[in-house]
Amino acid sequence: MPEQAHGLTSVAPFSNEERSVVYRAIFTRRDVRSQFLSDPIPDEILARILTAAHHAPSVGFMQPWNFLLIKEQAVKDQIHSAFQKANAEAALLFPDEKRALYQSLKLEGIKAAPINLCITCDRERGGPVVLGRTHNRDTDLYSTVCSVQNLWLAARAEGLGVGWVSIFNTADLSKILHLPKHVVPIAYLCLGWVRELHASPELEAKGWRKRLDLRTLVFQDQWGKSASEELKVSINNRDPGRP
Amino acid sequence: MPEQAHGLTSVAPFSNEERSVVYRAIFTRRDVRSQFLSDPIPDEILARILTAAHHAPSVGFMQPWNFLLIKEQAVKDQIHSAFQKANAEAALLFPDEKRALYQSLKLEGIKAAPINLCITCDRERGGPVVLGRTHNRDTDLYSTVCSVQNLWLAARAEGLGVGWVSIFNTADLSKILHLPKHVVPIAYLCLGWVRELHASPELEAKGWRKRLDLRTLVFQDQWGKSASEELKVSINNRDPGRP
Repeated sequence: MPEQAHGLTSVAPFSNEERSVVYRAIFTRRDVRSQFLSDPIPDEILARILTAAHHAPSVGFMQPWNFLLIKEQAVKDQIHSAFQKANAEAALLFPDEKRALYQSLKLEGIKAAPINLCITCDRERGGPVVLGRTHNRDTDLYSTVCSVQNLWLAARAEGLGVGWVSIFNTADLSKILHLPKHVVPIAYLCLGWVRELHASPELEAKGWRKRLDLRTLVFQDQWGKSASEELKVSINNRDPGRP
Repeated sequence: MPEQAHGLTSVAPFSNEERSVVYRAIFTRRDVRSQFLSDPIPDEILARILTAAHHAPSVGFMQPWNFLLIKEQAVKDQIHSAFQKANAEAALLFPDEKRALYQSLKLEGIKAAPINLCITCDRERGGPVVLGRTHNRDTDLYSTVCSVQNLWLAARAEGLGVGWVSIFNTADLSKILHLPKHVVPIAYLCLGWVRELHASPELEAKGWRKRLDLRTLVFQDQWGKSASEELKVSINNRDPGRP
């Protein structure tokens, strides 16, 4: 098909320097709660990171996402209350020995961040039958998460911190943001400039949980069958956060 | 807390050139089906992209992912059969006027790609109560998708193409790969070197579906309330794939 031939362009690996920039974005990205500055985010930069999100892969090119920016203080206040209610419920679920540490952790930056952003998934966007979604209905949710991660990495390159707040009753979020029934909130993000970030994930730094050894997570050809020793050696040499 | 102070490092926005590298990875990433070369992928490069995946954000630092590399031809053959069965079922779901186009699309590169990779989510990894997962049990699935997108962008920088195949009955995949009951396959990926990629998403190039106008997808403060004109102008100036 001539359309196909015309649509292809030559590509090459990025240079060593360029590759290291992509890895730097990946390895220094953090989930930010406490380091937000109040300076406003220019529309031009917001447009860039939203465009990055919009260029995520999506099942059947469904593009099921919407981007709901929250700037109004009254809306942030309602969201913050919904978080506080859910977080109090959450604390009760932890065993006694972990509850005090849980309650000491700051898990959101809703009011401190100049902009909040709820990325949603419209489950009806592609019509009743979506290419690639015929056997797993949740692939539209997965596509939306890909857009979250694109935005997060673009934000890191811009110097913006992002924090994903997931401690909400979904019904509260949907009500406050007036979401239609067929639209699911996937990620509630706090966005703002940062001058400092944690060198390692905050939950690791605060003793909540350790990074796993990647070599134990890689299998070959079937579950539980260890990867080759050569690959494990390469992994051990490369992982900047290895335990 | 001194631990916190010690854990913080200064960060700055990437330079203009560095930022453009991150955006290039994002904008030129494609879902590859037909452009795979058969050359092997060195362990060192595999280790780099797996490490990128392992540094994705995860709810409660749960790190619920495993990486199951498929190299053996017999396993690929079984997976390919499972795809063919599901894809025949899928074709019947489309209305007559779309079925011929659907059937003409190549939707997988299972046998052509030198390595397949199934990224899974272990739903029990963090124990019965996971920080941040108390109100939405699916956030572990979302974390795993973040790791997929990290790997995909790292692969683009390396010159590797990635194709996500989602047309399977989950039970078939789980059986072929011997997954335990508490482990869910999230993404079945085909990986291989590419010298050419589609300039725009293949499904767009082949007339399946158009890219949406990002300006219509951005709201402010509540669902349906349009973003500012200034932001829309900025978006229109920045989107390299705008319709």
